[in-house]
Amino acid sequence: MKLEDVQSPQDIKKLSIDELKDLAEQMRQGILKRTSDIGGHVGPNLGIVETILAMHYVFDAPKDKLVYDVSHQSFPHKMLTGRAKGYLYPEEYDKVGEYTEPTESPEYDMFYAGHTSPSISLSLGLAKARDLQKQDYNIVVLIGDGALSGGEAFEGLDAVGALDTNFIIIMNDNQMAIAENHGGIYATLEELRKTNGTSENNIFRAFNLDYVYEADGNDIEKMIAVLSKVKGTKHPVVVHVKTQKGEGYVPAERQLEDFHWRAPFQIASGALAHTSNKDNYHTVTRDWFLRKAKEDPRLLVISSATPNSFALEKEQRDALGDQYIDVAIAEQTGLSVLSGAAKGGGKPVYPVMATFLQRAYDQVIEDYALNNNPGTMLVFGASVAGVTDATHLGIWDIAMLSNIPNLVYLAPTTVEEYLAMLDWSVSQDKYPVAIRVPAIGFEHAKGEVESDYSDINKFKVVRKGSKVAVIGVGDFFPMAEHTVELLAEKGIDATLINPRFLTGVDTELLNSLEKDHQLVVTLEDASVEGGFGEKVARELGTSDMKVKVYGLPKRFIDRYKPADYLNSLGLNSQTIAQEIMELL
Amino acid sequence: MKLEDVQSPQDIKKLSIDELKDLAEQMRQGILKRTSDIGGHVGPNLGIVETILAMHYVFDAPKDKLVYDVSHQSFPHKMLTGRAKGYLYPEEYDKVGEYTEPTESPEYDMFYAGHTSPSISLSLGLAKARDLQKQDYNIVVLIGDGALSGGEAFEGLDAVGALDTNFIIIMNDNQMAIAENHGGIYATLEELRKTNGTSENNIFRAFNLDYVYEADGNDIEKMIAVLSKVKGTKHPVVVHVKTQKGEGYVPAERQLEDFHWRAPFQIASGALAHTSNKDNYHTVTRDWFLRKAKEDPRLLVISSATPNSFALEKEQRDALGDQYIDVAIAEQTGLSVLSGAAKGGGKPVYPVMATFLQRAYDQVIEDYALNNNPGTMLVFGASVAGVTDATHLGIWDIAMLSNIPNLVYLAPTTVEEYLAMLDWSVSQDKYPVAIRVPAIGFEHAKGEVESDYSDINKFKVVRKGSKVAVIGVGDFFPMAEHTVELLAEKGIDATLINPRFLTGVDTELLNSLEKDHQLVVTLEDASVEGGFGEKVARELGTSDMKVKVYGLPKRFIDRYKPADYLNSLGLNSQTIAQEIMELL
Repeated sequence: MKLEDVQSPQDIKKLSIDELKDLAEQMRQGILKRTSDIGGHVGPNLGIVETILAMHYVFDAPKDKLVYDVSHQSFPHKMLTGRAKGYLYPEEYDKVGEYTEPTESPEYDMFYAGHTSPSISLSLGLAKARDLQKQDYNIVVLIGDGALSGGEAFEGLDAVGALDTNFIIIMNDNQMAIAENHGGIYATLEELRKTNGTSENNIFRAFNLDYVYEADGNDIEKMIAVLSKVKGTKHPVVVHVKTQKGEGYVPAERQLEDFHWRAPFQIASGALAHTSNKDNYHTVTRDWFLRKAKEDPRLLVISSATPNSFALEKEQRDALGDQYIDVAIAEQTGLSVLSGAAKGGGKPVYPVMATFLQRAYDQVIEDYALNNNPGTMLVFGASVAGVTDATHLGIWDIAMLSNIPNLVYLAPTTVEEYLAMLDWSVSQDKYPVAIRVPAIGFEHAKGEVESDYSDINKFKVVRKGSKVAVIGVGDFFPMAEHTVELLAEKGIDATLINPRFLTGVDTELLNSLEKDHQLVVTLEDASVEGGFGEKVARELGTSDMKVKVYGLPKRFIDRYKPADYLNSLGLNSQTIAQEIMELL
Repeated sequence: MKLEDVQSPQDIKKLSIDELKDLAEQMRQGILKRTSDIGGHVGPNLGIVETILAMHYVFDAPKDKLVYDVSHQSFPHKMLTGRAKGYLYPEEYDKVGEYTEPTESPEYDMFYAGHTSPSISLSLGLAKARDLQKQDYNIVVLIGDGALSGGEAFEGLDAVGALDTNFIIIMNDNQMAIAENHGGIYATLEELRKTNGTSENNIFRAFNLDYVYEADGNDIEKMIAVLSKVKGTKHPVVVHVKTQKGEGYVPAERQLEDFHWRAPFQIASGALAHTSNKDNYHTVTRDWFLRKAKEDPRLLVISSATPNSFALEKEQRDALGDQYIDVAIAEQTGLSVLSGAAKGGGKPVYPVMATFLQRAYDQVIEDYALNNNPGTMLVFGASVAGVTDATHLGIWDIAMLSNIPNLVYLAPTTVEEYLAMLDWSVSQDKYPVAIRVPAIGFEHAKGEVESDYSDINKFKVVRKGSKVAVIGVGDFFPMAEHTVELLAEKGIDATLINPRFLTGVDTELLNSLEKDHQLVVTLEDASVEGGFGEKVARELGTSDMKVKVYGLPKRFIDRYKPADYLNSLGLNSQTIAQEIMELL
């Protein structure tokens, strides 16, 4: 049958093995069609086609509940649950998101799931609810593709190991995280693969779980057989399935890491559709790592499984050698390693996506800030222009980090300022530091930038005016700058401030503004709630100064276009300048 | 030798086994003396005396680095590193904290460590820094007493399993978490104990770690032998040690859970020095659980290993039966189970300490709030009057929770309001809810309380006045009330507001105040940065209204007396009333 005619999993139940194989082939074409056109997770989805086909063939969704970890490997699931056109027709692409979403498919998508590792624990909740209500259905979790290394996955295995009810965990072992796998369990998994699942050294049995091994995870017939065997089980079981990441598409099978997630590419060669040699914050960070590592043998670059997000390809990682550690998808550990290495006299730097840093919130507070160890976190994607999926928003970081004592959170406005802050951070030994790497633009400094940031919470007045002061945080500084220019055109000589620090306000400066200003405006590229502008508003709350806070609302947004979204909020210099005029 | 004469670990190096045994006995007396007088962790420390004695006998601190997980089992370590008097003389008690603290002993205490599970990852950082600097020392981690179930401990085992350098993990297996152990690994650990460490099913080897078992962890001679064997190892090794929690003190050996942490008690009987039959927020919560569970079979109480913190003793847990689940010390999983169970149609309630909830920040955002599943979190100890150790502060919760979309964070001011909110929360199916359980006082409502809280962010005007409006959040409401009374004495008829909601402001009400008020005052029992008052200040930032925000500063505080601390900050109704007078 044609893939686009599949309306629900019911439609595939009567297909023969050959027909299923044909469908698998169509699904692979769909994955390639969509990802080559608009980018996306290529390798994970190509590798998991047969597993998911078998899941829908054997189990009875929506009665049986299928839960996807990370869910960047859920394309085949979406294709089988009425959303195939989102992979076949460009005009339908934007109706389907990268991850499972209950709003997209209330029947078939159980959870928004974009971060790794919660699937087993989420499903444990489902299992308890099912059993308390004396309902009878299968709970099937698909995890893997690196997600097993996140602490919560182990917690989940442990908690489920104490259960005595139906619970099926399919562990997709494609021998990869996003980059190479890291960690001791991968040696054990290899032993299991080599012994066809018979090794006594078994991480799943060690959690008190039943265990089945399937070596041919890309064989639909075998996958149907193994899942049929565990269907209806009354005791938690792990189905350890060996698959080939990128299966069926040679470039993806050969360049596993590059095709985990890929920007638009040419299907024939696998080459990127657009390449750029331009510098960006990722490449300058990478270059700084390589340079600094040579200068200082104490420099340690910590990664939690996504080195390519920071332009650290294998070649650069090899060049860093012992000065690079990948702790696997395990941000809690990333943060603790940062603190521990600083305590031990190292010079650790941890680049991490803002959205994933959420997982290490406790470690930021307890291990890093309270212990007051001098390390450097580089917070990437902290912006409305970060990842634009609801599961990966980078707009909560100021609320997350700026309210923690001891921590110094810096917001550079230009690449030169960024590098100066980075240099300063690794040279000092008093503060746990985080730097908010700009995600909009690649601005250059107009003059010299300071090399010393030890005067904590000291704002920089870039232009001294009167009446109104505009404070532009980080990559929203150019918007502030432009606002001030527009005000100048209207005859208002505004003050322009680069606060540089997000973890406090420059009380002295703010109070000094009172004599010839009547309004302070703040602009930040993040949710305003719990953010920077509110601190300014509190500080000036009992003065005669008015304060207007600009930034993003506290709202989950999904699959938006940053520029459009900002305009819909009136977040542009024209609107802001006009509103300032009205307030004066 | 006398315990109090031990100035450093050097002093015990030449002692005979008999002399060490005598020292162990003195250490036990010290543990009992201190904990019976002022409360503390009894069982964990009694059980670990010989292990720590052997650690300091075999290894050479401070050159070798000893890292304690949770560190509530570090009393013997403190006694051997110059702090014995803190266990022997009441006047010295307050010089020694419950947990390791680098400020208390820069030489011997590596980290502030009060939360479970980061020790292995922190030490991995130390190991990387050591190796990069080509230093040569042993790194020894003591983990256990339940800490193994936290996700980060597994992440750490996994990451260390990929290492090829000196790294020694001592796993204190006392067969307990805080309450009973929960989870699949405990079956495996039991098998290892029964087979004297020879079982092939070995959770540590499954992480690619070397492994040694010692069945007699309370035998000093054997502990010295086993640690001598691993000293200087060039490959990560786990020393699995079986100990008896509470060793040497019959009441603690018999009542393992009660003596994990105990309030002051009589040494002879083990009975608590002071008991109370008075109701408190813990007991009313427990009673509500038991009542509601009978009424509604869908109710599920989730605990992450500290049920006794919520007055859920074994008897009540047994009464709840399947409607109770303990996920072990694993807050990430606690949160995901909450969301999953709500999704599955259950009525889950998760009581959790604010400080530990930090570990589930990502799950609150991604699994709970984004998925918008209708569960109930009960946030305990969220107050300046929560736990007063720097590692366990409960004053960051408003910044942590109130800035997350979808989540409804409620702050009851009386026990009746608390129970009404709890009833409402489990009856509704639209919002993920959290309730900030008061930690100061046990106030009763003066009239009827609302049963419906679905008018989100609607504040309640308790008394309508003019000129100044005082908004008192949660358990600081009585302070607001008293402030208004004091103002009345001065002839000012102030407005008094109970906001009830922390996740937004009542814009309509705030704007309506403008016509006859000139000042809004907020009082919250939490750090003001990222908190409630700042939202009010932002909302009113462009109006003529002044806003004064009262609460706690963003500052780590340690071992303080809440009342004294509040007074030192001027956080009392007299001072506030006076400052209001000055502002008007």
